[in-house]
Amino acid sequence: MDLVLKIGGADGMDYEAIADDIKWFCNGGGKMVLVHGGSAATNQVAAALGHPARFVTTASGHTSRRTDRRTMEIFQMVYCGQMNKGWVERLQKRGLPALGLSGMDGRLWEGRRKRTLKVVENGRRRVLRDDYTGRVERVNRDLLQTILKIGYLPVLTPPAISYEGEAINVDGDRAAASTAVALAARQLVILTNVPGLLRQYPDANSLVPFISAAHLADYLKGAGGRMKKKLLGAGEALAGGVERVVLADGRVPNPLRRAIEGQGTVIS
Amino acid sequence: MDLVLKIGGADGMDYEAIADDIKWFCNGGGKMVLVHGGSAATNQVAAALGHPARFVTTASGHTSRRTDRRTMEIFQMVYCGQMNKGWVERLQKRGLPALGLSGMDGRLWEGRRKRTLKVVENGRRRVLRDDYTGRVERVNRDLLQTILKIGYLPVLTPPAISYEGEAINVDGDRAAASTAVALAARQLVILTNVPGLLRQYPDANSLVPFISAAHLADYLKGAGGRMKKKLLGAGEALAGGVERVVLADGRVPNPLRRAIEGQGTVIS
Repeated sequence: MDLVLKIGGADGMDYEAIADDIKWFCNGGGKMVLVHGGSAATNQVAAALGHPARFVTTASGHTSRRTDRRTMEIFQMVYCGQMNKGWVERLQKRGLPALGLSGMDGRLWEGRRKRTLKVVENGRRRVLRDDYTGRVERVNRDLLQTILKIGYLPVLTPPAISYEGEAINVDGDRAAASTAVALAARQLVILTNVPGLLRQYPDANSLVPFISAAHLADYLKGAGGRMKKKLLGAGEALAGGVERVVLADGRVPNPLRRAIEGQGTVIS
Repeated sequence: MDLVLKIGGADGMDYEAIADDIKWFCNGGGKMVLVHGGSAATNQVAAALGHPARFVTTASGHTSRRTDRRTMEIFQMVYCGQMNKGWVERLQKRGLPALGLSGMDGRLWEGRRKRTLKVVENGRRRVLRDDYTGRVERVNRDLLQTILKIGYLPVLTPPAISYEGEAINVDGDRAAASTAVALAARQLVILTNVPGLLRQYPDANSLVPFISAAHLADYLKGAGGRMKKKLLGAGEALAGGVERVVLADGRVPNPLRRAIEGQGTVIS
């Protein structure tokens, strides 16, 4: 496996340019798996449906989407419906054999649901018991390899599934990292709406072009919420044998090509 | 293949009872493919998102959902997101290896998009050119058979995909019939929110318990919009080699078991 490509769901990404580059990559003989997000669209739909997005900060300092049952339903609508089939259509129109699956399907991404989520709200600790959040612990490698072997291009999206069979919201960057490890992918590219890791966010001139795996921890401390998860994912991918992770800009022309050429933050 | 089960998306269906019966069927060694709808939920979400459902009558007398691009996006949200992953979760919670796909994925259901749709509105003919509607002409049998062979339970949903790679809205009953034919299924069961074909709709006492394939055409004339498509699907399934089609009630206890036992309208 050559590449796991994670396409972020933030505003401003150029999906058509990314799809063109995926075609370029696949037509050159590259084997890849796509993982996409959908956070900005989910926020919009949730607001329109009268159940606006809320984000909570856990006691350990992570920020995550508050995912009650209704939020999970909206999350599935957007990630598995609108976004996933949007990607499948974009790729099928370009002649690519896209096949979209969520992490629930065939237990592709399995993990433990956090039975209780300890969060901090207005400086006070609270315990949430109706949240559907977790982390991918097992990737169904056999299923993915079969799909790849018979010639399809897997297009994967959260949610994942708990051991009890419940839909769970998981971080897409880290799920992509787990997938890259499971498939022994050489490379993980994470496209997002920034040029890479910025030393002084949002100053684009402060881009960090290279981080060695040994020094990744130094950069974790200073990173903001979303970037922190990307760096965590990068660390997990490298620790699992992926040779190279690139965090790169998904808003520019030829975004995947540039990322592969090393424009962005290369971690290896 | 033993069974293709189509579960309608009208109001009032007992999805938990159906899921229990699917478990009973699969645990008894039965091999099946599930096809589901989502029309009632789509109407609700479309209204909530400010793009309410509209239905058009074609010049040939068929009623279908007006599917402009925005409607298709909402359709995908509900059918491929909410409904498909709802079914996957319901089955996974029962220990069944559900794997959800739309007709777009891997070009599972391929067909021609109607470039122009001739409709009658207020007695006047109009031609729509921005509608995404079509009919399944090819089923990707190889992909479905691979998924079945490696042990998964396929959970399929519209939309299908055009030869040009566009999402197209297709009738779920007829897509289920095409799938049953492609897989040489012995039986097609269509669960809906009526007890079967009623001679005097909605009088449940007027249920027609049996129709021979030779006489199906006689019943087509009197049937209303949704029932007409089910009968058309039944006819296509039988013509393609399926032994038995049952139209049955999805609102009662043990809905699948009863249908298999012949409660409903049996066509063969």
